[in-house]
Amino acid sequence: MHSLDPAPHLARVRRTTPLVHNITNHVAMNFMANVLLALGASPAMVHAREEAAEFASLAAALTVNIGTLSPHWLDAMDDAARAANDAGTPWVLDPVAVGATRFRREAGARLLALGPTAIRGNASEILALADQGGGGRGVDSTDSADSAERAAVALARGSGAVVAVTGEVDLVTDGRRLARVAGGHALMPRVTTMGCALSGVVGAFLSGAEDPFAATVAALAAYAAAGEVAAESAAGPGSFAVAFLDALYGLDPARLTIPLADRLELTDAP
Amino acid sequence: MHSLDPAPHLARVRRTTPLVHNITNHVAMNFMANVLLALGASPAMVHAREEAAEFASLAAALTVNIGTLSPHWLDAMDDAARAANDAGTPWVLDPVAVGATRFRREAGARLLALGPTAIRGNASEILALADQGGGGRGVDSTDSADSAERAAVALARGSGAVVAVTGEVDLVTDGRRLARVAGGHALMPRVTTMGCALSGVVGAFLSGAEDPFAATVAALAAYAAAGEVAAESAAGPGSFAVAFLDALYGLDPARLTIPLADRLELTDAP
Amino acid sequence: MHSLDPAPHLARVRRTTPLVHNITNHVAMNFMANVLLALGASPAMVHAREEAAEFASLAAALTVNIGTLSPHWLDAMDDAARAANDAGTPWVLDPVAVGATRFRREAGARLLALGPTAIRGNASEILALADQGGGGRGVDSTDSADSAERAAVALARGSGAVVAVTGEVDLVTDGRRLARVAGGHALMPRVTTMGCALSGVVGAFLSGAEDPFAATVAALAAYAAAGEVAAESAAGPGSFAVAFLDALYGLDPARLTIPLADRLELTDAP
Repeated sequence: MHSLDPAPHLARVRRTTPLVHNITNHVAMNFMANVLLALGASPAMVHAREEAAEFASLAAALTVNIGTLSPHWLDAMDDAARAANDAGTPWVLDPVAVGATRFRREAGARLLALGPTAIRGNASEILALADQGGGGRGVDSTDSADSAERAAVALARGSGAVVAVTGEVDLVTDGRRLARVAGGHALMPRVTTMGCALSGVVGAFLSGAEDPFAATVAALAAYAAAGEVAAESAAGPGSFAVAFLDALYGLDPARLTIPLADRLELTDAP
Repeated sequence: MHSLDPAPHLARVRRTTPLVHNITNHVAMNFMANVLLALGASPAMVHAREEAAEFASLAAALTVNIGTLSPHWLDAMDDAARAANDAGTPWVLDPVAVGATRFRREAGARLLALGPTAIRGNASEILALADQGGGGRGVDSTDSADSAERAAVALARGSGAVVAVTGEVDLVTDGRRLARVAGGHALMPRVTTMGCALSGVVGAFLSGAEDPFAATVAALAAYAAAGEVAAESAAGPGSFAVAFLDALYGLDPARLTIPLADRLELTDAP
Repeated sequence: MHSLDPAPHLARVRRTTPLVHNITNHVAMNFMANVLLALGASPAMVHAREEAAEFASLAAALTVNIGTLSPHWLDAMDDAARAANDAGTPWVLDPVAVGATRFRREAGARLLALGPTAIRGNASEILALADQGGGGRGVDSTDSADSAERAAVALARGSGAVVAVTGEVDLVTDGRRLARVAGGHALMPRVTTMGCALSGVVGAFLSGAEDPFAATVAALAAYAAAGEVAAESAAGPGSFAVAFLDALYGLDPARLTIPLADRLELTDAP
């Protein structure tokens, strides 16, 4: 059995039903809540500044997603992240399209400075965020897979966060270790907010975890496994999304162990 | 045929296609609209203070849900509830997580004071709301089922609203009568905003009803019946939600009558 | 092959994956994003005034929908529409329930004055919008089908936009030509935000199109064709929505050509 076996992490989520507080974008809210419920966690979406910090201090994990940001929400995210830090609660930053506008670049830098436990994004987002001060050195490789890896490691070292770069093959690093998780399915990027919802799953797996790196790898492995099950019966992105929720709900922790041994590659970070 | 036969209520909704104005949370909006359309009602989501009261006065029913509240929306809810009261339009309060934060407790008390026609929540929410002044006496039973019943009756008497406590067995009271509605399915709480959407269905059933208590019971019975139909073909929460919309759409009023006689228990309130 | 053959338009969307920037209502966001992804476009929902104009200038098309409007969002829509105009980017106005309240009437008039490339609404919305200054003359016919046609032509001539009135038979006009597109299915209006999402599809088809009138006709034809495929396997509105996304994803451009010849009627505008 692999030392990064995801099965115990999934079992812990099912056993503890962690309350995951999400300040996420409007597109993702419903699907993310359904993903977390199907997984066995307890989602709550609370974003008003009047209660965000108070609620974050009650939660088992917090996730913060800048997808449909506004200044008021950004303040609430800041409050909630600080409350999570004060309570020792893990929190995840999802820097959606962080490089697209000045507003997002500033929001990304501000939230990064608050010290997330984990960061999950696609390669472009991680590259953009690393450029904004998390990394400490520029990212200028012309090889995008390679540059994303170097950016992720630099971002992890600069911020202290576990960094997950999701794509065809996911990459996770804490600046010291580097894991690659293969799997999933080509229909996943054709369903909106699959990535946003995954950040919620990372939050659920971080709750109660001793090793945030292992918990993040487990979350990605569980997600990929559910995607493969869903693809077996899907005729397109509509039926895929439905089958994906069913697959998460029915995911057997034991099922995760064996495939992962084949698909996960663990090395030292470069 | 039972005196609380839900069939005529469902038939009325189908016949009149009531315009249900919802100021609800971001997670629920899409699913709630689909639930109301599948049922045969006409949903509208309108929350800006600049138009909430004006729109509420056009609607056949109003629902107000504090799930993802903000101060501006709370003001709009207040305006809309007053407009509904002025127009004699029934309205439903859904006090999501009302006990969780100070902001919610104050919002719940403020909206309760406006006199909703019906209140729908889970046991914790009804207990919290009853504690905030609707009941007139404390709720301190250690038996949660029992305490929810007493809280619901006290809340109904204190507020004048029909109170529905939904869970494995639903409970409805107007402070004088008390009904229990069994049915539904264990997958229902694994789909997000099933309860929020039910509050919309209660709103649709209240429109044009002579007896709000009977209309609320009918709404819950119809929802439970659709849940049972959906469960027959569901493989998990994803396919359940899809089948549930199909089941609501296909629900035969005649089908509701017989099961209800077995599953509904009507008594005097204690 | 018809001169309004939609196949090349769909092929162009698939080939170019246009980034469609949507400032749309809360109910529509998730479904609209899934519709655009299934079609082959790249959706983004960005509504904060701090970035709406900047983002619109990056996009291949913009859509603006007043379904759940607030004053701040209306300002962002205004900014984004001006940025689209400056960049020569096509944009679509979806005037949801524009006649229902004073706030909506004023918002509709304000956005109309900014010169959308296309306007998509149901008959009531187009009638209301034409009345507010786009048409230049009153609409007072008692024949609603006839009056919608006259309102659409007047609105197109007054505003310079392509106007699409969707319903059982869709009508498209640029003030000179008038097309009718039959097809679709009776379950489509039982799924929430099918119309809103269609406005996004119109945006995707406008991107890179030489003739906005032909592109709008093609968008409506593709949508109707997907609806017909979906209806073959649907048991109600829940399964219809799922099958519709699958159908859009699987839509063969070649499939669109032949049916359209039978179902499209092209004339001079009256």
